Amino acid sequence: MQIALISVGDEILSGDTVNTNAAWLGKQLTERGVSVERVFVVPDHVADIARVVNESLAEYDAVIVTGGLGPTHDDLTMEGVAAAVGVPVEEHTEAVEWIETHSDYSHADLVSGTTHLPKGSRMLPNEVGVAPGAAIENIYVLPGVPEEMKAMFERIEDEFDGDPYFREVVPADEPESALIDRFEELRERFDVKVGSYPGDHVRVKIEGSDEEVVQNAADWLRQRVERP
Amino acid sequence: MQIALISVGDEILSGDTVNTNAAWLGKQLTERGVSVERVFVVPDHVADIARVVNESLAEYDAVIVTGGLGPTHDDLTMEGVAAAVGVPVEEHTEAVEWIETHSDYSHADLVSGTTHLPKGSRMLPNEVGVAPGAAIENIYVLPGVPEEMKAMFERIEDEFDGDPYFREVVPADEPESALIDRFEELRERFDVKVGSYPGDHVRVKIEGSDEEVVQNAADWLRQRVERP
Repeated sequence: MQIALISVGDEILSGDTVNTNAAWLGKQLTERGVSVERVFVVPDHVADIARVVNESLAEYDAVIVTGGLGPTHDDLTMEGVAAAVGVPVEEHTEAVEWIETHSDYSHADLVSGTTHLPKGSRMLPNEVGVAPGAAIENIYVLPGVPEEMKAMFERIEDEFDGDPYFREVVPADEPESALIDRFEELRERFDVKVGSYPGDHVRVKIEGSDEEVVQNAADWLRQRVERP
Repeated sequence: MQIALISVGDEILSGDTVNTNAAWLGKQLTERGVSVERVFVVPDHVADIARVVNESLAEYDAVIVTGGLGPTHDDLTMEGVAAAVGVPVEEHTEAVEWIETHSDYSHADLVSGTTHLPKGSRMLPNEVGVAPGAAIENIYVLPGVPEEMKAMFERIEDEFDGDPYFREVVPADEPESALIDRFEELRERFDVKVGSYPGDHVRVKIEGSDEEVVQNAADWLRQRVERP
């Protein structure tokens, strides 16, 4: 399963907000064996959101969009997603009922917009905040506030099914360039993916779909590098 | 001036690394009045890098690519950028000289690849690490290690020229939805962009190209909201 993450918000583009949502989702999905193929950050404009959602939907198995839900003029994500799939936004009865039941807000308090979802979408309840999410076709729309996003993702995570996925990390106290030959041999001997990440020492990540193969590959490498 | 940022790396997609490089660059560029229109995170694959660089180059005034420089098999950014503009990579004499002069590495120590840049590119010296960056057409290629990336960007930042840019932040201790009418009036009265960001209290950002207009708009709003 291949996925694109789309983060909506001028505040991410301008660096006022670090995109921790994409990192958190990337981790959850990778651990489930789902491959995150792209992250896009797009401004608070309907046309930009619609275009990137539409293109991603054509290319990946599913799309998770975060941010831009709520009542203010720059909360345009639902409109963008609706435009991407060619439906209008409309008041979602279930969203209104959920909010009236689960929050201190009455329907009359809610500024028009918060409960407007793309027509035909499934409402994803917001257990932490107010603005509901939505799922339509293979698009999942979640809030931008991290705690709200996380709680909503946990309700739907079983819908993201990947291949089995195992990982081992081997630290090495050598320059990355000195390790290249061993990486090559590692990839020849074992059916694994190898990534190396420099820092105080190099962390070598070995990933694959067979637990035993990944462990054997890690053991093989551990015996052949300087330990930090 | 409109810009796209492209971050290369499987480790960002899988959430092992939070994309602080894009946030830092977004801040620097926004403060210079340059508009960051997109952030892309792409995997360590030549075809993906080439495609996103090529598409971005057609659409934006400049592209800054970070990550994937160095000697290992997954450092493919220079090849991707070269493919995007239709040139080969080749050993860059100036890059070799710089490294021999400024680091403990001799040319013989360097694994082939580190000094290979897209043909015809300008070498951007790496004052903190080893792998050089490159500039070709309107593409700037910087390292992924944050300290190296920052030092390299500071050498070239004057090449990014934007419109004058001013910003004021007004905190408001009211629900975001209650502020909507005042935001609308603010935008009608002043030629400014208004963004609101919820948290413990709402932060209202007022931005524009005229310092006095931005200040007047902020003063106008400050007198009309509950202070935290």
